[in-house]
Amino acid sequence: MQRRDFLKFAGSAAAAMGTMAAAAPLLSVKPLLATTDSAYESSILAQKLVYRPDGWGGAKVRYLDYPGGSFDINNPRQADLNQCQSLGTSKIVGNIKQIREIQSGFKQYDLGFYGKLEDLRAAAGPQYYSPMGNALVFGLRPFGTEAYVDGEPRAEKLPIPEPATMSRHIKDIAFYMGADDCGIGILPKQALYTHQVATSEAVAKGAQPSDEFEIENDHPYAIAILYNQDFRTGTMASDGYDGGTYGARRAYFHCGTVACIIANYIRNLGYRARAHHNNNYQLVVTPVLIAAGMGELSRVGDCVLHPYLGFNYKAAVVTTDMPLMPDKPIDFGVQSFCKTCKKCAVECPSQSISSSDTQEEYNGYMKYKLDYKTCTIFRRTQPQGYGCGRCAVVCPWSSKEPSWFHTMASYLSSMKNEAVNRVIANMDDVFGYGTEVATEYKSWLGYPGMGR
Amino acid sequence: MQRRDFLKFAGSAAAAMGTMAAAAPLLSVKPLLATTDSAYESSILAQKLVYRPDGWGGAKVRYLDYPGGSFDINNPRQADLNQCQSLGTSKIVGNIKQIREIQSGFKQYDLGFYGKLEDLRAAAGPQYYSPMGNALVFGLRPFGTEAYVDGEPRAEKLPIPEPATMSRHIKDIAFYMGADDCGIGILPKQALYTHQVATSEAVAKGAQPSDEFEIENDHPYAIAILYNQDFRTGTMASDGYDGGTYGARRAYFHCGTVACIIANYIRNLGYRARAHHNNNYQLVVTPVLIAAGMGELSRVGDCVLHPYLGFNYKAAVVTTDMPLMPDKPIDFGVQSFCKTCKKCAVECPSQSISSSDTQEEYNGYMKYKLDYKTCTIFRRTQPQGYGCGRCAVVCPWSSKEPSWFHTMASYLSSMKNEAVNRVIANMDDVFGYGTEVATEYKSWLGYPGMGR
Repeated sequence: MQRRDFLKFAGSAAAAMGTMAAAAPLLSVKPLLATTDSAYESSILAQKLVYRPDGWGGAKVRYLDYPGGSFDINNPRQADLNQCQSLGTSKIVGNIKQIREIQSGFKQYDLGFYGKLEDLRAAAGPQYYSPMGNALVFGLRPFGTEAYVDGEPRAEKLPIPEPATMSRHIKDIAFYMGADDCGIGILPKQALYTHQVATSEAVAKGAQPSDEFEIENDHPYAIAILYNQDFRTGTMASDGYDGGTYGARRAYFHCGTVACIIANYIRNLGYRARAHHNNNYQLVVTPVLIAAGMGELSRVGDCVLHPYLGFNYKAAVVTTDMPLMPDKPIDFGVQSFCKTCKKCAVECPSQSISSSDTQEEYNGYMKYKLDYKTCTIFRRTQPQGYGCGRCAVVCPWSSKEPSWFHTMASYLSSMKNEAVNRVIANMDDVFGYGTEVATEYKSWLGYPGMGR
Repeated sequence: MQRRDFLKFAGSAAAAMGTMAAAAPLLSVKPLLATTDSAYESSILAQKLVYRPDGWGGAKVRYLDYPGGSFDINNPRQADLNQCQSLGTSKIVGNIKQIREIQSGFKQYDLGFYGKLEDLRAAAGPQYYSPMGNALVFGLRPFGTEAYVDGEPRAEKLPIPEPATMSRHIKDIAFYMGADDCGIGILPKQALYTHQVATSEAVAKGAQPSDEFEIENDHPYAIAILYNQDFRTGTMASDGYDGGTYGARRAYFHCGTVACIIANYIRNLGYRARAHHNNNYQLVVTPVLIAAGMGELSRVGDCVLHPYLGFNYKAAVVTTDMPLMPDKPIDFGVQSFCKTCKKCAVECPSQSISSSDTQEEYNGYMKYKLDYKTCTIFRRTQPQGYGCGRCAVVCPWSSKEPSWFHTMASYLSSMKNEAVNRVIANMDDVFGYGTEVATEYKSWLGYPGMGR
């Protein structure tokens, strides 16, 4: 029986037996921060939108404190945060240093630190010309300018509700704009780059592409805005090797534009706010996602796994000094699951993902090693086109077709039991996830061999 | 019994009696143009997305030809189109002249043709400061520039599927980006303005606000992209009198940006394409919507009623010379319904909507008279703030809370029976639609009396 047929059969059988109803309670609903602001509390919008029907999928989610030191989430001070022994489920074992944007993989590649671009491209296969992919990049472009990521706030601060209510309100706005999830965290100082590489706007104004600019940002809070990179039409409409990456670009467009709108909204209220997105980052998104309770660091080096969306999302961030009530980091069993599964490491076409049983120290925190250089070069030059999302496609946690079956698997995966984890990883193989024919889902016009 | 309680009671009663299942077939599915392009046909994306689950709601929809003359939709020639006796259900009785943008209500107001702005504003009440409304306007702004609505197409035309398949593909893209409906029509030449008023970009570059620029556009097709102005959080979160209009601005942002992305996509394929949206129009959207099968002209002067969305949407347009297979105009009973109902005319706070039993000739076609001047001045200066959407809020056709009950009402409304129409309009009153307390739905931060 084909996987799809099995799911269909199992689904209808379960419905007939009434187990569908039994599986429903697995869909946990995210708790909502209490509010004391009655003017806002009466809002139907808030109740409908903050309680996302998806919730956490089937995952069992636990909220974590900031252990060590005397960090108080209601009064976040960087000095106290530095004493913490972990950020979410990621252990901190040393002094985490801020990095420069120029140290990131894509900047290293683009600026020729991984080898001459001509040589790297000469080794690549025929490139796709992707008219729709380019149109999505075009769409985000104006939002990468300074006038769109940042600006002066309204001179006079307006009266706003107290922080818990304001956090709820900001999430409402994100969901109203179409976000698939939104979390608010304290901004770990170490997430900020010390220097940003010249943006395309700066280059157009005369800067050299490798020029660096010092970053100043003392915002205590970060809002993470996530958009689904729909598995069917995004992740699977491209096999990761054909230059499409439509899902990624669509999600970047949506979260990037909405981050700019929310940052502008906050400035219109009289507070400072800066948007960070695919076209203009001043920070590493990973630690922000963890702090905002949007997921855990996974085996895929720097990627955060979301309980419901898995890797099928893109995120943008708004940093702000507007008083907010941050969420807490979460634990839903990723550390235990990734230790056992290793599917991403096995399937990685450039062997960039570690299959080690143990994490290693990297810049003061523990993670599975990732070879940024081989990963980046493969994504930019691989023989069948452009881009790669093999790790996202094969990960059993990444939300595939929404079904009671996936909900149950999410629940089991978060049990932190090695034997169960092994079963889940194997079942994922049995059902053929990650081996499907991508063309089945395709409806994009792409032009192979026509260059980019 | 309150309307909401009644709906709850009726809904659960119907479910218990199994009539829920009986009402389901009323949800008609839109027919899909046949395709002969097998490469594209296999796409799951197309099948899932073009068949919107909403379909036409409960409305009985009939497709109309272009009567009179020898107009061929597969080979649209303007000379033949000029001979037609109607566009959809709107009767053409004379020579329709193209107008200049400066003749439109908002331009007339903004340029002082309806009276001195200082005098008009002095008569208005305290204005709302709307931080989120302003942020949404900010979001669309860069897309109003020439570089974003238009541009040179790729020098070489790429091979594309035949027109019926390409039309389906363009709709897929629109739905993929989040559109709530998308139709493709022939572009009636009369929809184009002859002259556009200076855009804010042109003014920034030195033009006078009242300067006019001649429009050149010989594109035969127009793609209409509709975004839902969600009834609950959009239309009803504002009573139309408080400066919010969040739903309108969100929908304008979404359809405007997506129109620019689709126009860019078409240019990337080697064809000409221009986006028209809230920040930069070269045409009147109304006739385009009718030609694209998105609805019928209603009693509310220039507003097109959509079978499922009612008035709760905003639309942007892409005109193009890329070969497409256009949809046909539709008839779902609006002419018959509007003749009887008159709720918008009765409720209109500025008495701008005609309550006449008969339509009148206006620029060569038949419509209910609308007083643009009083309507526009009220929307700009009314005592409780800014904007008005009373006609949209009270219209029985405008999709309210989605329910089997509304689906059934849509079905009955499209029967073209005067007695039935009267019952539907009265039931709408009985259930209190259009009289609800808007604050129940509110969750926006607005600042009354702080100006705009």
